Amino acid sequence: MRHTISVLVENKFGVLTRVAGLFSGRGFNIDTLNVAPTHDPSASRMTIVTRGNDATVNQIVRQLEKLVNTIEVRDFREGEYIDRELVLVKVKVDAKTRAEVMQITDIFRAGIVDVQARSLTVEVTGSQDKVGKLVELLSVYGILDVTRTGMIALPRN
Amino acid sequence: MRHTISVLVENKFGVLTRVAGLFSGRGFNIDTLNVAPTHDPSASRMTIVTRGNDATVNQIVRQLEKLVNTIEVRDFREGEYIDRELVLVKVKVDAKTRAEVMQITDIFRAGIVDVQARSLTVEVTGSQDKVGKLVELLSVYGILDVTRTGMIALPRN
Repeated sequence: MRHTISVLVENKFGVLTRVAGLFSGRGFNIDTLNVAPTHDPSASRMTIVTRGNDATVNQIVRQLEKLVNTIEVRDFREGEYIDRELVLVKVKVDAKTRAEVMQITDIFRAGIVDVQARSLTVEVTGSQDKVGKLVELLSVYGILDVTRTGMIALPRN
Repeated sequence: MRHTISVLVENKFGVLTRVAGLFSGRGFNIDTLNVAPTHDPSASRMTIVTRGNDATVNQIVRQLEKLVNTIEVRDFREGEYIDRELVLVKVKVDAKTRAEVMQITDIFRAGIVDVQARSLTVEVTGSQDKVGKLVELLSVYGILDVTRTGMIALPRN
């Protein structure tokens, strides 16, 4: 089962290494991870997407809570949170296919952030499903590069 | 000086721990970091924003290139790349301030992704400057929660 874990940590040296080590040390694969300061510059928030059975993930959550620089850990469950990801996709285009790619971009409410003679760079945000479908449609034209932020999440309440 | 470093790695176990350890072991602070699979599921891309003088960052780049699971390292410089970040901001609102917050959201071409009786959750993408200004404007109403993906980047050419 997929879990989205949000960890608020003190913005101290080496915290990322310790958190990453906790996952790899237990043989846990991280699907996506991101970390950035919050509006309080003394704290950073990490969002980790991982797969595993609930019992093992609960164990990881308890270990995260025990880390010295952890402020708060949340293990989000279906429906109780909003999650989003940002993806940049550079697509091959020529004079003929440019309009088609722009139309697909429009339908997905995605944006064009760079135009070159032979490529367009598209920015899209959304759920993993939405982003995956757009990438699939664009792959017909030739994908030159993709970079994804991984999921971030906030509780609804 | 701020550096945006993009590292394409094999999607192998423990790579994140080794990369994070390389930074912390050299006393280098990471501003933001994210990692996610690319369209080729055997490879992941990490984007790391760090500060430091050019000589020391060059040293880190060379060390990253030497890591066994590294496929490619790019150290982006001004103007030659597009970078973007996604931020979710939960803002306190009441019947009076809701319209004001929605107006600010509109001006920044941000989107509202969740509405509750006493809060709105806003999604915004852009440069660090743009995102920072929106968060500053919204902080007047009371920020309940912020989560950021950190920067991702692609070369223009």
